[in-house]
Amino acid sequence: MATKTEKNTRYKDKNSVGIVKPKDFTFAHPPDELILDSGKKLGPITLRYETYGELNREKSNAILILHAFSGDAHAAGYHSENDKSPGWWDSMIGPGKAFDTNKYFIICSNVIGGCQGSTGPSSINPETGKPYGLSFPVVTIRDMVKAQYYLIKHLELPFLYAVAGGSMGGMQALEWSVNYPDMVKSAIILASTARLTPQGIAFDAVGRNAIMSDSNWQGGDYYGKSIPSRGLSIARMVGHITYLSDKSMTMKFGRRLQERETYGYDFTNEFEVESYLQHQGDKFVERFDANSYLYITKAMDYFDLGERYGGLNNAFKRARAKFLVVSFSTDWLYPPYQSKEMVFSMMKSGRDVSYIEINSPYGHDSFLLETTRQTKIIKSFLDSIDV
Amino acid sequence: MATKTEKNTRYKDKNSVGIVKPKDFTFAHPPDELILDSGKKLGPITLRYETYGELNREKSNAILILHAFSGDAHAAGYHSENDKSPGWWDSMIGPGKAFDTNKYFIICSNVIGGCQGSTGPSSINPETGKPYGLSFPVVTIRDMVKAQYYLIKHLELPFLYAVAGGSMGGMQALEWSVNYPDMVKSAIILASTARLTPQGIAFDAVGRNAIMSDSNWQGGDYYGKSIPSRGLSIARMVGHITYLSDKSMTMKFGRRLQERETYGYDFTNEFEVESYLQHQGDKFVERFDANSYLYITKAMDYFDLGERYGGLNNAFKRARAKFLVVSFSTDWLYPPYQSKEMVFSMMKSGRDVSYIEINSPYGHDSFLLETTRQTKIIKSFLDSIDV
Repeated sequence: MATKTEKNTRYKDKNSVGIVKPKDFTFAHPPDELILDSGKKLGPITLRYETYGELNREKSNAILILHAFSGDAHAAGYHSENDKSPGWWDSMIGPGKAFDTNKYFIICSNVIGGCQGSTGPSSINPETGKPYGLSFPVVTIRDMVKAQYYLIKHLELPFLYAVAGGSMGGMQALEWSVNYPDMVKSAIILASTARLTPQGIAFDAVGRNAIMSDSNWQGGDYYGKSIPSRGLSIARMVGHITYLSDKSMTMKFGRRLQERETYGYDFTNEFEVESYLQHQGDKFVERFDANSYLYITKAMDYFDLGERYGGLNNAFKRARAKFLVVSFSTDWLYPPYQSKEMVFSMMKSGRDVSYIEINSPYGHDSFLLETTRQTKIIKSFLDSIDV
Repeated sequence: MATKTEKNTRYKDKNSVGIVKPKDFTFAHPPDELILDSGKKLGPITLRYETYGELNREKSNAILILHAFSGDAHAAGYHSENDKSPGWWDSMIGPGKAFDTNKYFIICSNVIGGCQGSTGPSSINPETGKPYGLSFPVVTIRDMVKAQYYLIKHLELPFLYAVAGGSMGGMQALEWSVNYPDMVKSAIILASTARLTPQGIAFDAVGRNAIMSDSNWQGGDYYGKSIPSRGLSIARMVGHITYLSDKSMTMKFGRRLQERETYGYDFTNEFEVESYLQHQGDKFVERFDANSYLYITKAMDYFDLGERYGGLNNAFKRARAKFLVVSFSTDWLYPPYQSKEMVFSMMKSGRDVSYIEINSPYGHDSFLLETTRQTKIIKSFLDSIDV
């Protein structure tokens, strides 16, 4: 009804971090490239990151937020006054929120292999002047964390008060705690696992197959040409089903039809759930690189925290952090039984760990949606950390 | 080690129905076409079917077996001495087995819309002399059953001692019991539901999308040309994940690599579960028509038994059959809670129903694998039927 231009003023809210600016850090210039788990070298590397709140004089209040599969460095606030949506974890990061920017200096870093400002397959390979494509080396979660370690050193932080993440972010938090034990005072692992299930690998494989079967994919060499949008869209549709739950889909869509009363007896998207998935697929294609989909799912498939240490117990024996592990009852992609296995292993290794399973209908996406309950738990956990 | 030609002699086993011959029944010749739920007409229609055992003099021992999504009329026995594998439910049908051919006359009929001998999108449209493709009308589970009713009349059976099926076969058994109440003395519903969940619809939609996104699909007009094999293969891979369970995949594959010790850091199928899925996809493409995938998944998506009767209770009030409902603990595609809802509705409607949830790790596929326990249950249920 209003005739004047509507403007988003939420960035002015007192619990918003407001307008934020992404930053880039470039390092590992040849000949000092990063040596990856594969043995290959990568450099130079740029990491896109954002920070919220202020570092205290003792440099003892830094928290590193680690994002999930399709996330990015923009975890909170707005990039401009015209920005319609805030960062992906804005509900959890800001003044008075779970990750309270009145108390903590929050960093969120994008991962290598991605396509949101950090070096990945769509970046220009300085040796050829062309996008890497499949000549980009396969990276692991440990490689992603190793790159972030350089960022933390660059920021001259003696240690991290906490590392925290959901899903693939939890995997990174685990690697941080085990590979840089003296750097990590506490680790918050939400909706995550110490190793992906074969079912998880299977869904990732389907997504990769859909992309690589798209005739536009061209062995990954599609930059500047038609992109494999149908394959990437199908991959995202599959992924989205796994992020929800049977229960949340029933609550959200049921068997309702989209803008019609009766069956159309054709092959259009007539159920609401079909339109929703199609929309998610279409939206994703606009913001995500198909090759990054391949690389990042592969990194998750490879993730098996205990592997290089002769088992999970040995891995956790290296850690010094206090742990908070949270799982969600209807998360079938990173099921609670896996979190419990991880917690038992932490306990066997003498780690200090708090565990809670939150009863929620929202499946794997719960860590993005269950703000109130997570806030309570995370706040009191963070308050308990001595540095 | 043997040098002589190895021959399959299992068709001679005393509990095998032996060598069987598929039969065809053609009906609904114009102008007497079958009127479908969509209002469209279909005819002539051929149904492929097989029979095992003998019809008794009273014609009171006939059991109709209804197959699942990718099944066919070949439920038991071998088509020839050289046939490597028996029919899809050979473990359950034969002398002394759950569906005991010493006692019962067993019929298994393929469905319309399929591609295994019955009229479907790959059949020749007599009006054009070319394959139907997408000009084939969309069919429902009720339409499939209506066509089978003509077959049962053709066989001059006054009634069916039982109708039985798993998954989509269970849907057909339910439609039989509600639409032809006087024809059905008992109904066995395994790993099935009275309506597909939105999650189930979502997985079907992904499969259809993968097929229709394959550039070979050509709006369904690919017969005699290159087939949309990549899309169909991806659809099958997704489907296969939903037929298994997290537990069975962990038991069967774990995180084992295929013929290698360490990660290859590339995008080949290196996990065993990836190779398995790829193999399932490739095999499926050889035997299944992509358009039939569209039509049959659509029929399942549409299935909502109570819809035309103002609710499930009203639907079951029409039925006269005794029911046996079996669900499987790890079946997340047709979850036990749905079977329970159905059973409660049967009870409210005054139906005689037995229900059991079998604790099994094999997910939705359990109805194909849990032979011993199903045999015990089905035998005693069938013994209890008075005709």
